Amino acid sequence: MQIAIIRDKIVPIEELEPVYLDRGTFFGDGVYEVVRSYDGKIFALEEHLQRFANSLAAIEITGVDINQIRQRVQKAFDTAGIANAKIYFHITRGSALREHTYDPDLKPNFFLTVTEQTDDTDEKTKGIAVSTYPDWRWKRCDIKSLNLLANVLARLDAGRKDCTEAIFVDEAGLITEGAASAFFAIFGQTLQTAPLTANILPSITRKYVIKAGKNIGIEMLEKSLTPQQAGSAKELFIAVTTKDIVPVVGFDDKVIGDGKPGKYTKLLIREFRSFTE
Amino acid sequence: MQIAIIRDKIVPIEELEPVYLDRGTFFGDGVYEVVRSYDGKIFALEEHLQRFANSLAAIEITGVDINQIRQRVQKAFDTAGIANAKIYFHITRGSALREHTYDPDLKPNFFLTVTEQTDDTDEKTKGIAVSTYPDWRWKRCDIKSLNLLANVLARLDAGRKDCTEAIFVDEAGLITEGAASAFFAIFGQTLQTAPLTANILPSITRKYVIKAGKNIGIEMLEKSLTPQQAGSAKELFIAVTTKDIVPVVGFDDKVIGDGKPGKYTKLLIREFRSFTE
Repeated sequence: MQIAIIRDKIVPIEELEPVYLDRGTFFGDGVYEVVRSYDGKIFALEEHLQRFANSLAAIEITGVDINQIRQRVQKAFDTAGIANAKIYFHITRGSALREHTYDPDLKPNFFLTVTEQTDDTDEKTKGIAVSTYPDWRWKRCDIKSLNLLANVLARLDAGRKDCTEAIFVDEAGLITEGAASAFFAIFGQTLQTAPLTANILPSITRKYVIKAGKNIGIEMLEKSLTPQQAGSAKELFIAVTTKDIVPVVGFDDKVIGDGKPGKYTKLLIREFRSFTE
Repeated sequence: MQIAIIRDKIVPIEELEPVYLDRGTFFGDGVYEVVRSYDGKIFALEEHLQRFANSLAAIEITGVDINQIRQRVQKAFDTAGIANAKIYFHITRGSALREHTYDPDLKPNFFLTVTEQTDDTDEKTKGIAVSTYPDWRWKRCDIKSLNLLANVLARLDAGRKDCTEAIFVDEAGLITEGAASAFFAIFGQTLQTAPLTANILPSITRKYVIKAGKNIGIEMLEKSLTPQQAGSAKELFIAVTTKDIVPVVGFDDKVIGDGKPGKYTKLLIREFRSFTE
């Protein structure tokens, strides 16, 4: 008799709920998105849905109706009634006994949560410290997949150093991005961030930061930085859907600028806010 | 009200079963093992438990009692009563609302299945074909983690080429290992495989293959191969817990040897069998 054990309970395999056989757990075989709302309005939902469709296509999860996902997101958001909400959703390839190969008719699993997004005013006004960590992630970080153990380990290390975010440094000694954010530096009047490659998430917040930079009239340079260069930047910040722009005032053992959020970072935060209204 | 959607059903967050909030799904934040039995006897369980303990320690999942895992494996195996069984088990860091950081008191989740292991005699006697694929995996494949999307994509590609296994080739142009196996070549009287590094799983079957090689008197060389070298080998095979040694007779577009399992591979299979009795 084929059986399973959940914690310490024995269950015949055929009585297992499909969620226990989710390929999302066995292989991280799925993709996800996070969107947020500002004062009752979801920000950039269409861009997130488009990226979600791209991620699904990249790992060949087929038969997902993006219109249906949009409806579910909207319905969940309306039902929750949370003005500043964080909406997380993922799709995995489906549930089946664990084999790398899969039945092409497998039905994908959808999961979503709507939770309260509590904005940390202190982070925004005082800035955060970040620490570097080796970029152990897989080589297709342009796909927003559930393979995030390297990100978890990086954050664990950052936490031990009293840092809020970990910044990945690849084998070539270049900064790729944060464990859950895009990473930006300001030198003079130039805003610099890594170019989009197979190992950088095409961040939607990044796109809006670049737009904000254009609006306030600073130049844009898409070029990778070394940690040493980042440590000597005039200003640093991270950009992430849930928090938009967060000033970085500590980078490993270096104090950035005068240890307070910089002039351009504050202008960018203000400009970004205008997009979300 | 914080809510979740499972497929298309809305559920208040507090009523969600913990399995839906498993960090194994959100991040692949867990590690696993696969053991098998031959004729009612589990093979190399202690080595697998030791590696499992190493994987847990590497990602800092604490508070797991390996004795309890051993008992659960044995109990499940006894209950199932399957002579040739495949036993899969994993532990994830636990269940919580999705955040990269976690409560250190989080209780790990355990899951196990015992299923019938059907041995494919054809594979053993005729050999299989394999195809190469870029090694997109993360950089800590010495940890047997649930981050396996690169392996799934590699197998998908192999299947399209009518191949049974995918062999990873890293950015330096060297073969690391198979998507779910160790990879070996025979040149003359020498058995060659990649050395154990941070990106090679310390395969237990590999260890027994090396022991078998010693017993039959062939030399061992731990050195990485290029695909070109592998394609010109006298013999090739993969080694994996569920199937032990499987001859490889096709490598990308090359026929290996005379297209039949080689002399030493057959000797190694016989020798390996003696370990499992």
